[in-house]
Formats: sequence, C-alpha cells, structure tokens
Amino acid sequence: MSERIFNFSAGPAVLPESVIKSAQRDIWNVADSGIGVMEHSHRGKVFDRILKEAEANCRELAGIPDTHHVLFLQGGASQQFAMVPMNFLPKDGTADYLVSGVWSEKAVKEAKALGKVHEASSSKDRNHCYIPTNVSWSSSPSYAHFTSNNTIYGTQWRQDPTPPAGVPLICDASSDIFSRPIDVRKYGMIYAGAQKNLGPAGAVLVIVRKDMVDAAASDLPTIFQYRTHAKEPSVFNTPPSFAIYVVGEVFKWIQAGGGLKAMEGKNQEKAALLYDYLDQSDFFRGTADADSRSLMNVCFRAPSEELEAAFIAEATKRGMSGLKGHRSVGGMRASIYNAMPRAGVEALVAFMKEFERANRAVHA
Amino acid sequence: MSERIFNFSAGPAVLPESVIKSAQRDIWNVADSGIGVMEHSHRGKVFDRILKEAEANCRELAGIPDTHHVLFLQGGASQQFAMVPMNFLPKDGTADYLVSGVWSEKAVKEAKALGKVHEASSSKDRNHCYIPTNVSWSSSPSYAHFTSNNTIYGTQWRQDPTPPAGVPLICDASSDIFSRPIDVRKYGMIYAGAQKNLGPAGAVLVIVRKDMVDAAASDLPTIFQYRTHAKEPSVFNTPPSFAIYVVGEVFKWIQAGGGLKAMEGKNQEKAALLYDYLDQSDFFRGTADADSRSLMNVCFRAPSEELEAAFIAEATKRGMSGLKGHRSVGGMRASIYNAMPRAGVEALVAFMKEFERANRAVHA
Repeated sequence: MSERIFNFSAGPAVLPESVIKSAQRDIWNVADSGIGVMEHSHRGKVFDRILKEAEANCRELAGIPDTHHVLFLQGGASQQFAMVPMNFLPKDGTADYLVSGVWSEKAVKEAKALGKVHEASSSKDRNHCYIPTNVSWSSSPSYAHFTSNNTIYGTQWRQDPTPPAGVPLICDASSDIFSRPIDVRKYGMIYAGAQKNLGPAGAVLVIVRKDMVDAAASDLPTIFQYRTHAKEPSVFNTPPSFAIYVVGEVFKWIQAGGGLKAMEGKNQEKAALLYDYLDQSDFFRGTADADSRSLMNVCFRAPSEELEAAFIAEATKRGMSGLKGHRSVGGMRASIYNAMPRAGVEALVAFMKEFERANRAVHA
Repeated sequence: MSERIFNFSAGPAVLPESVIKSAQRDIWNVADSGIGVMEHSHRGKVFDRILKEAEANCRELAGIPDTHHVLFLQGGASQQFAMVPMNFLPKDGTADYLVSGVWSEKAVKEAKALGKVHEASSSKDRNHCYIPTNVSWSSSPSYAHFTSNNTIYGTQWRQDPTPPAGVPLICDASSDIFSRPIDVRKYGMIYAGAQKNLGPAGAVLVIVRKDMVDAAASDLPTIFQYRTHAKEPSVFNTPPSFAIYVVGEVFKWIQAGGGLKAMEGKNQEKAALLYDYLDQSDFFRGTADADSRSLMNVCFRAPSEELEAAFIAEATKRGMSGLKGHRSVGGMRASIYNAMPRAGVEALVAFMKEFERANRAVHA
C-alpha cells in the first residue's frame, strides 16, 4: 500500500487507518457472509446487526439515555437546518438562534423562511472570531439552536449555552461531536454530519428527545418528519448503509481508545501543541480569541499573504495537505479532528518552526 | 480473500467485483494523493475530478443532452417522492400517477398531501402482477409519474407511457436505470436510488430538464429546491462523496462492457435463462404476466409454501442468497441487476432443475 499523507482537511476529513483497513476487508465480504457490506439488504440480518451495534455503541459512548432516539439519516446538517424548524417551530412560535458563524447563519435562514427567529446572540461584529456567550433570550422560544464548533473561524463553545428552563437546546455538533464527553440529557436534539469526526459524508447522526418527536408537526411530507424515522429506526427507507457501517467502526475505534474522556485528553494535547507554539510566536498568530479557541480547527495567519501561500505550498510538498484557510478568514487552518494522529500535529509544528526561522529575516 | 456468494438481493444489491476492488484500493489512497476517497474535501481537486467524470460518463452512457441537469443527491427515491410534487405540482394543479406497485403508491401518497393527484392507471386489481398500460390521462396534468420497474412484483414497462404533448414525463427508475438504453429527451425527469443498478445506498441520481428546474416552486426550504443543487451541481452541501465515487466506477464498468445496448443484451439473456425455464416447468410458475415481466426481478412460486421454504433454505446453503420473495407476493424473487453475473443465473437455474426433479414426486 502506498504512503498516506497528513490530511488537515476541514471535512470530509481524515479517518482512522484501522477503520479504513476494516472497510477494505468488509466491502468484499463482511462477517463471513460472502457478500460485501455495501451489497447487503438493509432488511437483512447482517446489516440489521451493524445498525443495532452502531446505535448501541453510540449510546454507550455518550451515555445516551432512553429518553432520546438515535437516528442515522441523510442530507447532512444542511437538511437538518430545514427539518428542525419544519418539525419544531410552530407558525406562531419563535426560535432563538445563537449565531457564531456561517453555518449558524444558514440555519437561521431556513428557520426564518418557516417561522419567526430571534438572534439571541451573534459574533458577526468581529467576523465570528469569538463565541457569542452574551445571550439575550426571547420571552418564550420554541427552542434554542447553536453551533458547538465553527470550522471556518476555529471557535468552539467551551460551555454550552443555557436557555431558560423548559426550552429545548438544539445543537449542530457536526464538527466536534464525540471529541469530548457530552451530557445528552441537557439537549432536546444534537445533530452532526458524519464527515468530520464520525465517518464519511452521507450520514447525519440525529440524537433527539422522544417527547419532542411525538409532539412535532405532522403535516409534513412523511420523510421530513422525525417520527417517521423514529418509528422504523433509521430504516424507513433504504439508509446510507455503508456510511452507517463506517460510523459504527469509528465508534468502536473511539471505544478502543478509551472513550470520549480519553479522546478529549488527546484532543487537548494535540491542540495545545499548536496553540502553545502560536502563543509564543511573533511570526504566526492565531485568529480566534484565546477563550474561544477550537480544539478541532486551529486557524492562524503568517505576516503576509505571500508567506502564507509559500507556507501552504511547502507544507503540501512535505505531505501535509488541506491547510489553506477558508477564504472568509484567510491564512491557514489545521483541522485536527479525532482521527488526526498526534504525529501529524507534531510534524506541522516542526515545520512551522522551521518556516518561521527561515522567514523571520524576510519578515523583519 | 474469502469466497463471495451469488447475491440475489433486491437492493442494496450485488456490485461488480472489479468496482469493489477499485474501492478497496481507493479508500486507502486515491489517485496517488496519499488520501483515501472518503477523506477528500468535496471542494478539492481530487473529488472535483471524480464528480465531473461521473457526470460526464453518465451523460455519455445515456446520451443525456445539455437540456437536462445530472445531479447526485441524497435521501433516495423516497425523498424524491416528496421533492417532485413540492417542486413541480402547483397548488391548483393535478399530477397524473400510473400506479404499478407499492412504490408508485408511496409516491402518490406524498403528492396527495401536497396537491391533487389523478391515478391515470393502476394494476392494483390483480396485486400489480401486470403493467397498467391502459391509461386515462386527466385534462391537463402538471406532470405524469410512473415507476419503470417494480421490484416486488417483477414487472417492468416495456415501452414508456406517452402522456399528452407538453406534459413532462417523470420516471422513478430506481430498479432498472441503465439496464437498457434510454432516450432521455422524452423525460422531464428521471430519478433513481443508486443501490440497485448504480452503486451503494446513499446517493440518488436525478436527471432533470433545466427549464422545469427554472420554473419550479421557489418558496421551499433551500435544500429541497432542485435549483439549489443545479446551481452548484451536486455540491450545494457536502455530497455523499464515496457513494458518488462508486457510482462513477460503475459507470466506467458499464462503458467497458460496451455501454447500455450491450448491457441490455446481457440482461435479456440472463432473464431468458430463468423465464424460459419457468415457462416449460409445471412445478415452478412465474407470477407476473408474460408481457409485463421484468428483466431485473424474476418472481416465481413453487407448488407449496413448504417447498418454497425448503428451496430458499437449500439455495442459501449452496451460496445463493436473497431469494425470498417480498411478503406481498410470497415465493421467490431473483434480482438479477446489471452486476449479477450470468454464472449466478446459470447456477440458480441448475439448482431449480435439480430441486424440481427431487420434489416433483412429492408434489404429484
């Protein structure tokens, strides 16, 4: 097998190599069935076991109580931006949205087309380089929605917002799900596209309170009602079976590594390698406020756009890809999700040091 | 690598072995990029090439003119059941549906919740064992919808229905897409879940006329408007990139086999092996009317349910799986999609002969 490089892509993103190796075996013949995992009926025993095991491992990892459904759906977070208000925002209701970046804004846009939205806080004034913790809730919101991690700006909620009592908290956790322990009981709903921390693109994990699903709108097309998917868990129609299989393998990989607490420790260590270096450098500088920094996406700039272009080009030559920052922030972004090995971050920091040494003179 | 068996599953279904072998390689490192195909950014060069190539090969295979978009979406045919009337059925309009089975009925159900539906023909009177070609159109339908192949009953439209001039024909081709040549110019839209003839579950191919997309409803959530996906072809949000990759590999495999005309010839030969045997047998009998028989799903019964259970159990022991018929028809169903090798059908017919010989006495 040819060599793999360090992939700092913001998503789809690096997967654990052991998971890819399992997939290589199982797409040919899974569980000694003589049939590959992509080719099994979603109503058959082999896939049924894969699905049930994925759900059970998900529940075990995050301590998800029986009050919540665990569903694997399609359409990514973007489809959830529409399905959340379709299901949970009555025509005469108001939903509170905490706006911490472009993805929150997209969620707001879809909700606004369906009902009333109150932007309870926003970090737009400083291009979302911080987490807008200064929240002013509306009087009686149907739910409160926030984005736990903001890939583009490299910011992350350290502590979840706390809406007024009785208001369901809904979290788009696409880019930091299962990077740390999570207290599911606090949430009405958590959703996450798989393609950053959980698996390949094409599956979205939805953890949602059963009583909310029961009370949700029922005048929607069948497939856009959560109750449809809760009734026949994840198999109302043909599910993205291979994507679910990979997500299940990722759950097992997290478990084998010690679970979410151990994962958080590793993620803190990896991020500290980068942030500690950035903090003492007068060449590179991080773009997010220190108290809002993400453990998943580390955004930083060099002294000039020319140096940034040179940095990215040279890093690519050295087997570190996906480091170009999003155009709305510029510079560099290192996405260091669960599956990014510590060795990848060490290689990046070593190269940053070398690049700084070589170019400090140019800059000075 | 351990042995694979013959997989007659109705879907997800057998894939070409050469495609699986390519996937085994490419999920580790695709195009010598050092990154697996599941891990590439959907905005990067590597995936962009995969997507563009898949679209180009799709257009080349089926002769799709520039009048039509080629899109890879999520949610399967079931989501299209909702999106079609959401986009194309005005509140004061009527849509004509030709009802040839459960999947047509599900499409009708979603359309009825959104507008008026006229059932222009139906085969319900005889449990959908034939194709309802006797059509009575409404006066001015917004579109005409049909299901080209009916997996459960083993029926298939031999010739497409012909709606009144100017009425867009919309086809759910999930279970026979690219099993034969197709004249796309006749259609307003063709859609197909990938998991039978095109690849794994999790992608749905949508071929739709550009002028229809331009004129479609615009008061829908962004992600449910076809124009959204047409504007940024298949990458409005993160697409199911691995599923699209596999579909692209299947397109190449069809091309390498001679294209759709050659595929049709092979499918006719495979189906004839089964139907010719059924026609001369007084033990097994086909369940679909002869003029409505599907080349994709061959449904048949044995003289008793006990014999059917014994047949399925013994076939499974001999490495032929997925032969149990749908409960609404009973008996057996052999799904022999594009990727089912002729050797699989030959093995099945040989076993049917043997089983008939061994059990004819019991039956007589």
